[in-house]
Amino acid sequence: MELKLFLRLFFLITTACFILILTSINFSHAPSSVTRIFDCTNSSLSPVCASRNFLFNKQIRPIPKNNPQPNPKNHDHLSDTPKHPLDPLTLVEIQTVRSTLSSHALFASSAPHALHSVVLEEPDKNLVRQWEKGNPLPPRKASVIARVGSDSHVLTVNLSTGHVDIVESPVRVSGFPVMTVEEMSDATWAPFSNAEFNRTIVSRGINLTDVICFPISSGWYGNKEETSRLIKIQCYLTQGTANFYMQPIEGLTLLYDLDTKQILEVSDTGRAIPLPGPNNTDYRFASFPTRDKTRILNPISMEQPRGPSFIIEDNHLVKWANWEFHLKPDPRAGLIISRVRFHDPDTQETRDVMYKGFVSELFVPYMDPSEAWYFKTYMDAGEYGFGLQAMPLEPLNDCPRNAVYMDGIFAAADGTPYVRENMICVFESYAGDIAWRHSENPVTGLPPIKEVRPKLMLVVRMVASVGNYDYIIDYEFQTDGLMRAKAGLSGILMVKGTKYENKNQVKKDKEGNEEELYGTILSENVIGVIHDHYVTFYLDLDVDGPDNSFVKVNLQRQETKPGESPRKSYMKAVRNIAKTEKDGQIKFSLYDPSEFHVINSGKTTRVGNPTGYKIIPRATAASLLDHDDPPQKRGSEQWAGGLFTYQSHGDDTLAVWSERNRDIENKDIVVWYTLGFHHIPCQEDFPIMPTVSSSFDLKPTNFFERNPILRASPYFERDLPVCGI
Amino acid sequence: MELKLFLRLFFLITTACFILILTSINFSHAPSSVTRIFDCTNSSLSPVCASRNFLFNKQIRPIPKNNPQPNPKNHDHLSDTPKHPLDPLTLVEIQTVRSTLSSHALFASSAPHALHSVVLEEPDKNLVRQWEKGNPLPPRKASVIARVGSDSHVLTVNLSTGHVDIVESPVRVSGFPVMTVEEMSDATWAPFSNAEFNRTIVSRGINLTDVICFPISSGWYGNKEETSRLIKIQCYLTQGTANFYMQPIEGLTLLYDLDTKQILEVSDTGRAIPLPGPNNTDYRFASFPTRDKTRILNPISMEQPRGPSFIIEDNHLVKWANWEFHLKPDPRAGLIISRVRFHDPDTQETRDVMYKGFVSELFVPYMDPSEAWYFKTYMDAGEYGFGLQAMPLEPLNDCPRNAVYMDGIFAAADGTPYVRENMICVFESYAGDIAWRHSENPVTGLPPIKEVRPKLMLVVRMVASVGNYDYIIDYEFQTDGLMRAKAGLSGILMVKGTKYENKNQVKKDKEGNEEELYGTILSENVIGVIHDHYVTFYLDLDVDGPDNSFVKVNLQRQETKPGESPRKSYMKAVRNIAKTEKDGQIKFSLYDPSEFHVINSGKTTRVGNPTGYKIIPRATAASLLDHDDPPQKRGSEQWAGGLFTYQSHGDDTLAVWSERNRDIENKDIVVWYTLGFHHIPCQEDFPIMPTVSSSFDLKPTNFFERNPILRASPYFERDLPVCGI
Repeated sequence: MELKLFLRLFFLITTACFILILTSINFSHAPSSVTRIFDCTNSSLSPVCASRNFLFNKQIRPIPKNNPQPNPKNHDHLSDTPKHPLDPLTLVEIQTVRSTLSSHALFASSAPHALHSVVLEEPDKNLVRQWEKGNPLPPRKASVIARVGSDSHVLTVNLSTGHVDIVESPVRVSGFPVMTVEEMSDATWAPFSNAEFNRTIVSRGINLTDVICFPISSGWYGNKEETSRLIKIQCYLTQGTANFYMQPIEGLTLLYDLDTKQILEVSDTGRAIPLPGPNNTDYRFASFPTRDKTRILNPISMEQPRGPSFIIEDNHLVKWANWEFHLKPDPRAGLIISRVRFHDPDTQETRDVMYKGFVSELFVPYMDPSEAWYFKTYMDAGEYGFGLQAMPLEPLNDCPRNAVYMDGIFAAADGTPYVRENMICVFESYAGDIAWRHSENPVTGLPPIKEVRPKLMLVVRMVASVGNYDYIIDYEFQTDGLMRAKAGLSGILMVKGTKYENKNQVKKDKEGNEEELYGTILSENVIGVIHDHYVTFYLDLDVDGPDNSFVKVNLQRQETKPGESPRKSYMKAVRNIAKTEKDGQIKFSLYDPSEFHVINSGKTTRVGNPTGYKIIPRATAASLLDHDDPPQKRGSEQWAGGLFTYQSHGDDTLAVWSERNRDIENKDIVVWYTLGFHHIPCQEDFPIMPTVSSSFDLKPTNFFERNPILRASPYFERDLPVCGI
Repeated sequence: MELKLFLRLFFLITTACFILILTSINFSHAPSSVTRIFDCTNSSLSPVCASRNFLFNKQIRPIPKNNPQPNPKNHDHLSDTPKHPLDPLTLVEIQTVRSTLSSHALFASSAPHALHSVVLEEPDKNLVRQWEKGNPLPPRKASVIARVGSDSHVLTVNLSTGHVDIVESPVRVSGFPVMTVEEMSDATWAPFSNAEFNRTIVSRGINLTDVICFPISSGWYGNKEETSRLIKIQCYLTQGTANFYMQPIEGLTLLYDLDTKQILEVSDTGRAIPLPGPNNTDYRFASFPTRDKTRILNPISMEQPRGPSFIIEDNHLVKWANWEFHLKPDPRAGLIISRVRFHDPDTQETRDVMYKGFVSELFVPYMDPSEAWYFKTYMDAGEYGFGLQAMPLEPLNDCPRNAVYMDGIFAAADGTPYVRENMICVFESYAGDIAWRHSENPVTGLPPIKEVRPKLMLVVRMVASVGNYDYIIDYEFQTDGLMRAKAGLSGILMVKGTKYENKNQVKKDKEGNEEELYGTILSENVIGVIHDHYVTFYLDLDVDGPDNSFVKVNLQRQETKPGESPRKSYMKAVRNIAKTEKDGQIKFSLYDPSEFHVINSGKTTRVGNPTGYKIIPRATAASLLDHDDPPQKRGSEQWAGGLFTYQSHGDDTLAVWSERNRDIENKDIVVWYTLGFHHIPCQEDFPIMPTVSSSFDLKPTNFFERNPILRASPYFERDLPVCGI
């Protein structure tokens, strides 16, 4: 009973502009996967490993020049073994799950079956927190979501004993699991077996070989047929360009049953809309004539002559500056950062900051209610799998030269493990920024003072290409204890065909109002449709341990008393500790400003301030959709359908759930933060979008006794490399 | 008459969270100064100059490896000559102003006199826009603000004819000019000639040689004595630390007359407050024991084996990627960027983006109404001179190794020119970010596509150390046409002495409310007082020329009609062109979101969209002070006192001025943008603050027909350097 609740908690989605503070739960389901960068326990010859103790021992200088070569090719991952309770399932463990389940009664029938998720079942938080290096690992378990016929099942496989626990079988809540990559692939080919589809393509004078189709999750709108597991399919012309997204066959939509693999319906409302041409749409460097390829900027390389300053211990434990955290790829969340701790330079303690952080969901509603568009209200993590859609990173361009890479190991629909190479990268970054500085004014007569420290960061990055869009997710760690979570949007717009070639052709009514286009004309016959992006982060902060409180530090105008001061007013800070979940629901306000602190009231600094971190918001777009609108119900403020987001009805919502309004003071609380973007496309987004990004910060606030990088060294010329071409 | 108005316009300050669109005026007063990096017209041997034509000629590859050595030492600036109508006054021109004025009747009296500002009087905007390289320069003129006895005077000196025009003499508006550096210096020493001051110091058991005093602008509160030009002076103990700001002699405030150089009043209310000790306050690297100096991070250097991609032509014209702009130091604004243009890769046109941009004012009100604190409501540009307080940048740490530097040339109070070395730096930056990308999903069956472009920027930076605080001002230029203005705050807090050593000692009233401390206890006996920072930028955007309009693109929820769609609502964009100045006053709203576009309705793209740039806000703190509060009247929404901010009464406000509500459609409009920060100090800010920064963007929006960096090259391994230690 409790377990079921926990499952539901995991994929909660919140509204933009809300921070929702909820009592934390140890996840019984935490999708994960395995990989390897450097195993410093086995390879003392690796130049990176040689400096492994460097973090906590100031006397050990990092070794000279080395150029990390991550993921030595041909590493087959066959010898990977878990070293940490949170390590993702290894390739061998996934094979064990497959063979264990192959003899299980559930899969004995002839009904079609598929594994939709095979990930580590994370041990209880207390067990993980108590575990120390050298201890035996808690029992390794896999959490499995399977589909047999038209039913979903949740299972747990004990990897040592081979025992299979049925968690819920069949699943009764609304919604379906993340679709498998195999299903996505099937859906792209399904239209070509449909005679009606082929006829309509040919009748438009298009060769079937020039057409590509793409599955688009259909949401849930309460229609009768939605008891089946459905997807919409739309098609594009590939002729003349690799950027087929810019040549939509507008108004042609197929409805496909993912279970029966049948096309249920062909809707063809766009025959009057011409196909946009391929001009200026290709973006591949190889597609440009040689004369245009001359570089207009000289490259800059971030060079580290003394090598990187971080290590990755036992494949997953990243240590850099005073930070350490566990990092793993995940098929649904993309990547998960756990056990984030900071080595306090004053006290020499290693202090808890965050137990776990990841992208819980992405909600992308398009703003066109018409037949071929209304359903485009994506939930990319729960429908497509944010990690499944993370393509291998491109060295030198996705990540700089000094990056190291981590592979993901996921299970295919038949349970076979596969390796997603270079899925995550980790690198140090320096952009020429300043960590802190002061120049003293010469009028003081003091000897000249000019103290400046360069700002370095560690960046953890993944990129998911969910169809047309590319989401760049960065976690940045600063030496001063600040963590930044950043979402960058690039890739290709989802565009709509139109009969218009120019804005001046758009019809006007008698009052002179232009016909609603739902977007911007980007090129002849192409409209970029308005849409939003909401990226929701789950943040189980543990500031000096799990028992935390949430404080709203409200800034208020205080009038002075008559005669008190030549001033009439000043601004004061009023602290309010949230007692219950409802108190912790925050709607940002510009004109009633607040800071949002997560504190540990059981631990104070030397001068008596409770230790804390504050959440610094940015990208605060809030949804304008009607609260009763189906996509809004599913996508925000409300429960996304637990594990089963796909076609969920949003019937078990966060709003309902937080009605329980539990006590959250000095509890193990979780912060849900949503980064929101409104996107009115512009011509610069055509044919591929310059990256737009935003972020929010978790900043230490009386967590340290003082500036933790007070003693950082400046750069000296002798530190820097000598470079040639 | 008109002229006077223009003068007033220049130093307007606006409220945070307002964008105020005002009809642009060509400044008759535009403070400026001269410098030199590389003179490419004279030095064809310079490696940087050799690539000067590279920008507009794709065939010319930049030359190999070079390491720019800016500002060759011993450059005396004596041979500098102006090459562009906006070039600041040269060293020789300032000498000419000085000698011209020395024989002027105004300075014949024996009354004390000083030049408070000697800068270029910028030519009319039309003249500047029409000017082309090779044309003769418009007549060179200096704008001078002088003080003789107790009067201020505004003069114009024609540098060719020696003619002096009296613009306003004496000045009748409220307020005084920026104080001179000499006056600041005098004020720091003045207390030591005062017997009462010396007595109170000695009676506290402090050696006078261990005391340092600092002048703090006094604002204006309507008191009788404020008809004189006053400053407050507060003092600090230097014993045991270079960070004297952390040892305030609390409650000891002197009132000083800047004209008569007399101490008018000694207020001593803090004798009961102990002096905080120097423990852990020093931040100088040299002050730490050697054992703590081991570097915990290996340095990263941004290396450009093929050299930088930008040039600075004729000392001030920066050309990088497709950008070009004029850059100069300024004693009041810090730096001024003018004639910002973008070379359109599609049309080969060089297109106007912004005529001029600079920091117009910084307003920093502290939130403590008590006797020794109420007046701390700084306006750093108009009171101290943001450029005058810009200290030389520290190579390798303030700016990366690949930076080049520009000197400022300013006039001392007696008119003598002096050189402020390395006042501005310019560098290319790469932080490992992605300009655009797309990976195609393999389910499409297409040949693999993975196209990624690294993101490079050009950064222009200056840092002003206005007493304790350090303001890092960056202008970032992206290859995709985006400009970002960024303000970073570092340096040292202004702290208050307190009797409390721990939060648990703070007195509570009967209801349990703690005594108001006006801030946070940062260390024993030290309170960091709450304050705000408002950095106001003046942005004279000229999108494809001066005639622009301001469009508020409002995002609204639109309910669907019954039966129209399975959706109940969508979001639509409604464009409203601001007709008048009042329409252009924007108060940001989170829940009624808008985009803010500056468009040229006379110029459209191929598909009919007006060309434009949009303003993307961030750091939107808004002042909570009472609107009638003296600092608020002076500091926001209202006129800061024209040229004469110092002790201005704020009697000529923007609110009043924009009441004229002039037509702004298709006019030469100006955008005023204020970046706002609320700062509740925390212990991490002690004893020196990690940089906090925010920014806003100017982003092309249908300015280009398409993504202007579509054809940018990715990085290849062969582009990158080979480095050793």
